[in-house]
Amino acid sequence: MTATHPFDSAIALQPQGEGGWQGRTHPAYANMIGPYGGITAAQVLNAVLRHPDRLGEPLALTINYAAAVADGDFELRPRAARTNRSTQHWTVDMVQAGQVVVTATVVTAVRRDTWGGHEAAMPPVPRPLDTPRTPRQGVEWLHRYEMRFLEGRIPAKWEGQTSAGSLTRLWLRDDPPRPLDFASLAAMADIFFPRVWLRRATFVPIGTVSMTVYFHADAVQLAAAGTGFLLAQAQGQGFAGGFFDHTGQLWDEAGALLATTHQVVYYRE
Amino acid sequence: MTATHPFDSAIALQPQGEGGWQGRTHPAYANMIGPYGGITAAQVLNAVLRHPDRLGEPLALTINYAAAVADGDFELRPRAARTNRSTQHWTVDMVQAGQVVVTATVVTAVRRDTWGGHEAAMPPVPRPLDTPRTPRQGVEWLHRYEMRFLEGRIPAKWEGQTSAGSLTRLWLRDDPPRPLDFASLAAMADIFFPRVWLRRATFVPIGTVSMTVYFHADAVQLAAAGTGFLLAQAQGQGFAGGFFDHTGQLWDEAGALLATTHQVVYYRE
Repeated sequence: MTATHPFDSAIALQPQGEGGWQGRTHPAYANMIGPYGGITAAQVLNAVLRHPDRLGEPLALTINYAAAVADGDFELRPRAARTNRSTQHWTVDMVQAGQVVVTATVVTAVRRDTWGGHEAAMPPVPRPLDTPRTPRQGVEWLHRYEMRFLEGRIPAKWEGQTSAGSLTRLWLRDDPPRPLDFASLAAMADIFFPRVWLRRATFVPIGTVSMTVYFHADAVQLAAAGTGFLLAQAQGQGFAGGFFDHTGQLWDEAGALLATTHQVVYYRE
Repeated sequence: MTATHPFDSAIALQPQGEGGWQGRTHPAYANMIGPYGGITAAQVLNAVLRHPDRLGEPLALTINYAAAVADGDFELRPRAARTNRSTQHWTVDMVQAGQVVVTATVVTAVRRDTWGGHEAAMPPVPRPLDTPRTPRQGVEWLHRYEMRFLEGRIPAKWEGQTSAGSLTRLWLRDDPPRPLDFASLAAMADIFFPRVWLRRATFVPIGTVSMTVYFHADAVQLAAAGTGFLLAQAQGQGFAGGFFDHTGQLWDEAGALLATTHQVVYYRE
């Protein structure tokens, strides 16, 4: 008997008719309040991935966290707003108790054989197995990932000292390991603890407002990454008025760029 | 008599009932086929800005260009999917002849007085008035902006030589000058000619698929920028399978970060 990976259990959806799905939050990915935002992104993407009308593979995902997702059931309502020859434009609402808790747009596309050459090169870093695993404690979802921080780890002392930079680099994979796919890559794009904590060494309440992921690999390339580590990198840009953003990249062990990602995050004080 | 600025004419909307709007493409912002994508973004944002139920100011905009916008009338259908105490989540469809041509999400928010400190610093560059204006020829919308390129200008010779980098920096403002606001800032976020042209010095057909803008300033700060120049910077990240992305920033002359932006673009061959 093969046990189902908790990630697959967490993104499982039941068809509801008219292209809609029902899902349920999973305790293995619980955050401080409600679920880890990355697992919500994976659930939203899965509503499109599993849709019978889907054309091509994910190219772009924007997810807006409109309200806290409550533990329990949710509905996903994907709509193919426009289907072209090689691209398809989706909107997705996540609904709980009749209220929208997430809005999202997804673009899927048929990739073609073209000139290519990634410009965002993986920085020179030690290999994952030469980097010790970083112990992470706290909320449940942290235990679903193996993290090996290289730079910009979460402050050891919360002494309120401001730092100029918020660059974080870590090696990352599912724990237990699971072959990479679009859903798990979308989830990993939200792996970064809030940059404002790194800048300030102050534990202020935060919440991601909106995240965008651009996918730069096809399913074959993701499968080739297998259960290997990804190098995940993020750095903050603007911090003012209760909101900051970061920009980030994810590479496979061989150095291939798999995704770029950005998010804007609410913070208090 | 004061003449209306072409930008204001281009983003003008007529109420249609139920929160919907009618607009019309404007010849002053014509691109090769249909309108400049930046003016479409400004029109979409304006549908939210002018909505009587709007809470706060723009924080995040994602616009997906689902199909070519045809010259002529369009409808904008904004929906306040969720309204919280200090944030509001909008979806917007642009429709022509009963077909969705654009999907978008907009987050508006009430900014608060918090700790702040932008991390994405303006690079050291010559002042705009010490930088000669760059002649731009071709499609009509190019004449609506004064551009003073510092780095990464459009290839003078299309000789198909591949370059490793696609960093562009330019000073930018409306022509004729117009005081900066959220709508014009959204439009300027799409100012960058396609990075793939810079990398390859080859004129391949392209089209923006999705653009996200995060706003890092409030209306008072935008008003303070007035009719001054903005420094606009962008650099490509991933290029493969017929799609590339770039990440960019816009600062005012004083060096304040006003917006960060990302987009993913289709290219042929």
